[in-house]
Amino acid sequence: MNRFIAVDWGTTNRRAFVIEDGRVVATERDDHGAAMVPRNDYPAEVAGIRERLGDLPMLLAGMVGSTIGWREVPYVAAPAGFEEVAAGLDRVDARTAIVPGLSYRDGTRADVMRGEEVQLLGAVAAGSVPADALLAQPGTHCKWARIEGGRIASFTTAMTGELFSLLRAHSILRHQIDRDATPGDAFLAGVAEGARHDLAASLFAIRARAVLGVEQDAASLASGLLIGADVSTRIAAGEAVHILADPALGALYSVAVTALGGTPHLVDSHAAFVAGITRIRELTA
Amino acid sequence: MNRFIAVDWGTTNRRAFVIEDGRVVATERDDHGAAMVPRNDYPAEVAGIRERLGDLPMLLAGMVGSTIGWREVPYVAAPAGFEEVAAGLDRVDARTAIVPGLSYRDGTRADVMRGEEVQLLGAVAAGSVPADALLAQPGTHCKWARIEGGRIASFTTAMTGELFSLLRAHSILRHQIDRDATPGDAFLAGVAEGARHDLAASLFAIRARAVLGVEQDAASLASGLLIGADVSTRIAAGEAVHILADPALGALYSVAVTALGGTPHLVDSHAAFVAGITRIRELTA
Repeated sequence: MNRFIAVDWGTTNRRAFVIEDGRVVATERDDHGAAMVPRNDYPAEVAGIRERLGDLPMLLAGMVGSTIGWREVPYVAAPAGFEEVAAGLDRVDARTAIVPGLSYRDGTRADVMRGEEVQLLGAVAAGSVPADALLAQPGTHCKWARIEGGRIASFTTAMTGELFSLLRAHSILRHQIDRDATPGDAFLAGVAEGARHDLAASLFAIRARAVLGVEQDAASLASGLLIGADVSTRIAAGEAVHILADPALGALYSVAVTALGGTPHLVDSHAAFVAGITRIRELTA
Repeated sequence: MNRFIAVDWGTTNRRAFVIEDGRVVATERDDHGAAMVPRNDYPAEVAGIRERLGDLPMLLAGMVGSTIGWREVPYVAAPAGFEEVAAGLDRVDARTAIVPGLSYRDGTRADVMRGEEVQLLGAVAAGSVPADALLAQPGTHCKWARIEGGRIASFTTAMTGELFSLLRAHSILRHQIDRDATPGDAFLAGVAEGARHDLAASLFAIRARAVLGVEQDAASLASGLLIGADVSTRIAAGEAVHILADPALGALYSVAVTALGGTPHLVDSHAAFVAGITRIRELTA
């Protein structure tokens, strides 16, 4: 029996899993994200998880290894697969280790991820995604990864979700777009407009139409603009996109991919994380 | 002697001019913008200006005619020149009138302006700009206007400045870009990157480079990205762009226009306003 605790430690949330022979047997989720936990509190946080979930070996992934986390773990340079990630593991003690994030450099292009690599590689390990594929993880910072031979060949982060949040909280559009986007006609009109890549003007036009009394679902339109700009830059005609996301965001990206000539496939992101972290455990136990 | 008071009444600031035979003989500027003045206070505000600058006829332009101003003045539909603007004047009383803004519709495209029309048409009236030209007014909401036969044929607003402000105040890049942009190499690199129209990813790359320890002038880079995306969408190869802006922003747009194959011409925006409002006064006195 191989039993361990895996923690997906994000900026704002944290999810812990007890995994036994590749299957989740217990889980907990709270808001003790890396932004909430002072550096010196990590030993106590980890001890607390062990008290609640069992005195087991632990693998920690995500922002716990960043400058705002427990300790900074050097990025592993992409292209990288499970072997490189496992080799970059930061062993805090004999039973506790932090999974490194990935970096990517290509000329002036630069990118980083922490935690997403477990899901991305795990989606392949779980058999949900072919060994050569384009994967998208929508969110505050949407990750797009090219998988080649089961390894992450390159990736791009688009701060699509963050831009939408900024607009919703602070922009001149804030009162117009303060509701959830839905994947209907307004969203599709936004996707088509977003693919024209004139974001600063397309956003103002939402304001102008309101001032001129034109009825519109501004939130869905704005969401479509941002997601359409993102997706249209990333996919080639007819390309399959494997999407790891919660249902609401997965539905929006899925509709946008279809509208822009791609083929969306929704992937269970929790199952992908579990498969990925289990494989890393196998390689490093 | 034709003497009157012209007020350029913006959202946050207000500038008043005493104009005599087309020349400014006195001026004042304060922060009593439309966002600061309750609707019922406008009569007192206007009386105050007359007390300070003289008991003269007044022409008010800008946000004073908007939903957040004194009273909402219907937009005049572009294409429009001085004649249409003068015909749309809203006479509050025998000696006080508000200049209407312009609207533009073309299919789903929609746009509005309030106050900028005086500068745009005035630049032509002053002889600073030919009767057929592309004009840019950089700012929070950058206006781009096509002038044909001395009239505003169409226009586009890009919320370029607002996006930069949002990023600087609230985004993950806020600590990196909290300084003034300068039109040097970093800005030019941003302009080139911005012309690729992948804003959400290009912005995150600024964050990633910082995380990876790459030295960069992030503020100038981010400014270049946004301005490069704006300018490259708006100009054709070799096109002349007449820029109405303060010196700092004028320099940035000027450098971006040149880098993207256009020819920038800086225009005195205050002289343009005075010429424009004087012409409206002539047509309506």
